[in-house]
Amino acid sequence: MAAGSSFGKNFIVTTFGESHGAGLGCIIDGCPAGLYLSVEDLLPYMERRRPGQSEFTTSRNEGDYPEILSGVFEDKTTGTPISILIRNKDQRSKDYGNIKEVYRPGHADLTFDKKFGFRDYRGGGRSSGRETAARVAAGAVAAKLLSCFGISVRAYTKSIGDISIEIYDENEKNDLYMPDHEAYEKAREYIRSLVEKGDSAGGVIECVISGVPAGLGDPVFDKLDALLAHAVMSIGAVKGFEVGDGFDASLSSGQRNNDVFIPDGKGGIKKETNHAGGILGGISDGSDIVIRCGVKPTASIAMLQKTVDKNGNEKELLITGRHDPVIVPRAVVVVEAMAAITIADALIGHTGDRIESIPGGIS
Amino acid sequence: MAAGSSFGKNFIVTTFGESHGAGLGCIIDGCPAGLYLSVEDLLPYMERRRPGQSEFTTSRNEGDYPEILSGVFEDKTTGTPISILIRNKDQRSKDYGNIKEVYRPGHADLTFDKKFGFRDYRGGGRSSGRETAARVAAGAVAAKLLSCFGISVRAYTKSIGDISIEIYDENEKNDLYMPDHEAYEKAREYIRSLVEKGDSAGGVIECVISGVPAGLGDPVFDKLDALLAHAVMSIGAVKGFEVGDGFDASLSSGQRNNDVFIPDGKGGIKKETNHAGGILGGISDGSDIVIRCGVKPTASIAMLQKTVDKNGNEKELLITGRHDPVIVPRAVVVVEAMAAITIADALIGHTGDRIESIPGGIS
Amino acid sequence: MAAGSSFGKNFIVTTFGESHGAGLGCIIDGCPAGLYLSVEDLLPYMERRRPGQSEFTTSRNEGDYPEILSGVFEDKTTGTPISILIRNKDQRSKDYGNIKEVYRPGHADLTFDKKFGFRDYRGGGRSSGRETAARVAAGAVAAKLLSCFGISVRAYTKSIGDISIEIYDENEKNDLYMPDHEAYEKAREYIRSLVEKGDSAGGVIECVISGVPAGLGDPVFDKLDALLAHAVMSIGAVKGFEVGDGFDASLSSGQRNNDVFIPDGKGGIKKETNHAGGILGGISDGSDIVIRCGVKPTASIAMLQKTVDKNGNEKELLITGRHDPVIVPRAVVVVEAMAAITIADALIGHTGDRIESIPGGIS
Amino acid sequence: MAAGSSFGKNFIVTTFGESHGAGLGCIIDGCPAGLYLSVEDLLPYMERRRPGQSEFTTSRNEGDYPEILSGVFEDKTTGTPISILIRNKDQRSKDYGNIKEVYRPGHADLTFDKKFGFRDYRGGGRSSGRETAARVAAGAVAAKLLSCFGISVRAYTKSIGDISIEIYDENEKNDLYMPDHEAYEKAREYIRSLVEKGDSAGGVIECVISGVPAGLGDPVFDKLDALLAHAVMSIGAVKGFEVGDGFDASLSSGQRNNDVFIPDGKGGIKKETNHAGGILGGISDGSDIVIRCGVKPTASIAMLQKTVDKNGNEKELLITGRHDPVIVPRAVVVVEAMAAITIADALIGHTGDRIESIPGGIS
Repeated sequence: MAAGSSFGKNFIVTTFGESHGAGLGCIIDGCPAGLYLSVEDLLPYMERRRPGQSEFTTSRNEGDYPEILSGVFEDKTTGTPISILIRNKDQRSKDYGNIKEVYRPGHADLTFDKKFGFRDYRGGGRSSGRETAARVAAGAVAAKLLSCFGISVRAYTKSIGDISIEIYDENEKNDLYMPDHEAYEKAREYIRSLVEKGDSAGGVIECVISGVPAGLGDPVFDKLDALLAHAVMSIGAVKGFEVGDGFDASLSSGQRNNDVFIPDGKGGIKKETNHAGGILGGISDGSDIVIRCGVKPTASIAMLQKTVDKNGNEKELLITGRHDPVIVPRAVVVVEAMAAITIADALIGHTGDRIESIPGGIS
Repeated sequence: MAAGSSFGKNFIVTTFGESHGAGLGCIIDGCPAGLYLSVEDLLPYMERRRPGQSEFTTSRNEGDYPEILSGVFEDKTTGTPISILIRNKDQRSKDYGNIKEVYRPGHADLTFDKKFGFRDYRGGGRSSGRETAARVAAGAVAAKLLSCFGISVRAYTKSIGDISIEIYDENEKNDLYMPDHEAYEKAREYIRSLVEKGDSAGGVIECVISGVPAGLGDPVFDKLDALLAHAVMSIGAVKGFEVGDGFDASLSSGQRNNDVFIPDGKGGIKKETNHAGGILGGISDGSDIVIRCGVKPTASIAMLQKTVDKNGNEKELLITGRHDPVIVPRAVVVVEAMAAITIADALIGHTGDRIESIPGGIS
Repeated sequence: MAAGSSFGKNFIVTTFGESHGAGLGCIIDGCPAGLYLSVEDLLPYMERRRPGQSEFTTSRNEGDYPEILSGVFEDKTTGTPISILIRNKDQRSKDYGNIKEVYRPGHADLTFDKKFGFRDYRGGGRSSGRETAARVAAGAVAAKLLSCFGISVRAYTKSIGDISIEIYDENEKNDLYMPDHEAYEKAREYIRSLVEKGDSAGGVIECVISGVPAGLGDPVFDKLDALLAHAVMSIGAVKGFEVGDGFDASLSSGQRNNDVFIPDGKGGIKKETNHAGGILGGISDGSDIVIRCGVKPTASIAMLQKTVDKNGNEKELLITGRHDPVIVPRAVVVVEAMAAITIADALIGHTGDRIESIPGGIS
Repeated sequence: MAAGSSFGKNFIVTTFGESHGAGLGCIIDGCPAGLYLSVEDLLPYMERRRPGQSEFTTSRNEGDYPEILSGVFEDKTTGTPISILIRNKDQRSKDYGNIKEVYRPGHADLTFDKKFGFRDYRGGGRSSGRETAARVAAGAVAAKLLSCFGISVRAYTKSIGDISIEIYDENEKNDLYMPDHEAYEKAREYIRSLVEKGDSAGGVIECVISGVPAGLGDPVFDKLDALLAHAVMSIGAVKGFEVGDGFDASLSSGQRNNDVFIPDGKGGIKKETNHAGGILGGISDGSDIVIRCGVKPTASIAMLQKTVDKNGNEKELLITGRHDPVIVPRAVVVVEAMAAITIADALIGHTGDRIESIPGGIS
């Protein structure tokens, strides 16, 4: 069935909405009571996903202003569903005629028709990247909750094409969210060279989750890394996922790949290295959780493409309008949101719904 | 909560059991009625996962003979839960004293203690690779069901260390399940060189699912590739997952990465290439579904390792007993099983539970 | 955890919203594509639940006008989530001071405080009967879907206090939704006599679901009657549930209670009687499904009541404002909605999500 | 789909098995680690459900001896799935020919055929009352867990036919589990009079759950009473469910039905009466939770009955073999089991999976 619009078992996020309908949004069910929450907590996250931020993003001005419809009373969450609505704006009454009957390569046009019998062809409908705005709003709530427990989630661009960051520089701010100035400049040139031809680029996003206590996650099907994989692979355009050393671990040997346990000097235990990426046997080990995902180049390119129409006739297609020549920078906050939702879900399974579960809550 | 022992929404597999308890097994809930099924359908799958097959697998003779306890009547599934039990045998009353209090690097010992407060230290307990025997039994049922719909699932070793197969040779049979004779011989040498030092190797498994009709999967959180990622990343030792070109797509451009649609010559539509790996927007597109996963080197190595005990005291640990120097060959069928379960689950969501849903069923 | 705001496995309804927040509504995930749907389909259902219809309902004019935010394109459902929003209006800036600290007898004030640590005291918050507006909107969609399959759902007032209908008269229309004119008149007098004292009445609602094919439901935990019980008992103020002869069956004997099978004269099979209420072993048998529920008298009475405040001090409480002296008439459509949602959920499990699943759909 | 063999969200019970297969049992996923558990904890519960206890139960000697296959190590639960197996014995190679093609009135024969296309006709297959043995085993685990929190669950026969107990006498022990000696004697005579004619009786079971803290349950779809209704209505032969005053509340007035809050003399709050049955707005209020269910008379009667065969031909059927003339006494422990499972599930949602969650656990 189509019923795959919810994520999580304890902190459950359900999204709705299409690119060109009345609006989109989410319901968060299971957020504990007593968390201070307002629209201001959501805005910085929405802002990072917003188009029109740089030369590398579409200029559609979505002006995504979320409205919290329920679940907050006197500035605190009540424990009941938090519903967030984002109205669609700037929907130009543009002519979608040229893609109505034609399947865009790299898009979900064909598969939607096969699954549902027809599709909302305006801007991709439900498969539009715009759907992620609802995830980001929910992720902002999850991140706020996690921050009360000393857990932080931070994603950034690891590479664009084959240009990777060398060292993470927290002071470097740029429109590719690529925390290494030299790499940023190279990446910018690389993208520009593709844009000139009407082509597009891909890249890799890395996400580091710090402060997660040891003991979160399950040992079998719901391993914490399996849930993170599910979460991150559910973002459109993501084609690969890794935790810790990921695929490189397959090139290593047991001796080199094993993280040796050592005393942490404070009576506890830590790992000397973190090849595992913070998860052992599906359960957090107290180290930073480190994940990565590979993002494909934007499918909507400004080049003439061969394709077919719904009747199987060969066509030539030129996608007009402006599209991000690289999705990676705007997807950074989406990865962060999905990671935050996943960790919040595991955390509440661990702590239960007790009102004391939010440190400093309900005072 | 610990309740993460089930997978799927329609074809639901729940596993139980530890390495050294009375036994392990599974319940499959949601398998349609009318499928011909017997233990003989399970045995070839169990056999491939079985230890003691080659120089690269432990000699523990598990003799995994599954018993179908329910859900089959007069050789056909009844539509009610299929329960499968595999008794544990060959449990040497070995002394686990040396690992009872000590955390093995690369294992879940520490994280189990942190999550549950204590652990079953015999052979890894629930985090033992032996848990996958139950998945393989369930996967055999899923594969049988899929075969009625013309869907096949086939996994194999893609690489060991940095030695990869060149071309898939279906006639090549070897104990590494590596379908390229030359690569196999190199990989064997590579593993032997590590074994000599007491070290271990990793590798990559690839899985191809053919015959899946276009239209399976959901567009948002339960994208078919996200579910496959969840399924495969839930296998112990797997550190990365890819669909289609995976991480390499991030190095490509939109023009090169887009799969152009063309007429299939039979009135239908096909893709000229398959960079996407058979899934577009989370929904199957009718091409082969191609996934890969990266497997870390066996954590149990025959070398002296530094570690700590549960009180944080430094220890030296030598893991005795025989362990697979590479997990990849035995994990091949586990990947196949998890992929089959995932596709069966999506298929039943699509067809419903109607008795006509199995082609040729109930005759 | 608090995460209990969703109902169903295939046709999944998630509601949000409080009595006095910005609004309330629902997401329906899993409605098949191709169903013709517009706000006009919802209005007759909303209207029946609306207050201010008669002398027995509050005069708060909610003017519940639902907005469909997503999931419908060119008048047809797309298979993606249908989100419905109902804005709250007529929220008098009334002084809730007298119930802010005091627990109303028969209400959820105390239990919300115990569960969540505090509560939204305005009009009952999430435990307000107003929450059912979202269920009714979802139920209208379910009913529309069922009607395509020839399934109808019809609820009515069976009794008020000890006054019961004798025979169902489909032509009788009245503000108690009690289809027997004589019983209606007696019930009206009974309620008036209670209203005079500031007291309130309860009653029984019956619901008949016709046209359900034999074979829906599951044999064990998710028996169709168990799901209907869950659905109907989740409506506030409902204290009992029955299927078929219900509790009276416990007074009968096997011979009298068994429904004998007979030929239906058309080559099929029917039951001579329907003591079972259309469900045998948890699975529909093709007869009418008949369920009933007992509704308690309105807890908000216009009489001075003893109670305590949140510090445990004795208080006297007089609830002001107008409240329905009997909830039954407005709950009739809520029972109908929950029944429709439950049957739609079972139906889609049976038919799958295929586009052909809606008879006459996608033409 | 058929996948309705699991119950619960946190303490998840999945059952399998038929009357005449190799065996039946369950997996409990989500039981916290550290609970002392052995087969001895299960036996008293199994014993109460066992046939052959009295003149009113079948003489089939099932000798239900459960085996714990997993999840327990050194006498304590490990937090991983607890699997319990009960082998079928005493399966007479009896001739089921007379019911193979014929539909027994009041049984699930017809509906299984309609749903699954065929059925396991031996002893009712999955719809056999024997399936409840697995529930009782799981319920025993739940009850043990609850007892650590000071919560007790106690069910008994409230009435047989129209003979009800007057006052609960805890010292009265009899084979009808009817705690009022005088009522027991009358009920025995009533049943005997029916048995003489080959007929059967029904009755009502009441269950009292004491010690539940205020604050368990959810306010909307997963109200604690809705979950209890789901749980209890999922037991075969149960046709009605009530909480507190149940249907009688519909005859009362608001003034009489409201439970007034008063100080409990210890600084807390209690209710003066308990018409609500311990649940307000779906959440436990700290009082005893009181539920009841109506059980129909045994469908298998020793009288000639009219029916049809699968081809719709009229038949006469005489069911042979011995059947319980009243199901109520053996169903008492099943109701207790389902109630315990439901409360355990809600409790773990509240406390989380932390090892401290079992008072005195992990010492």
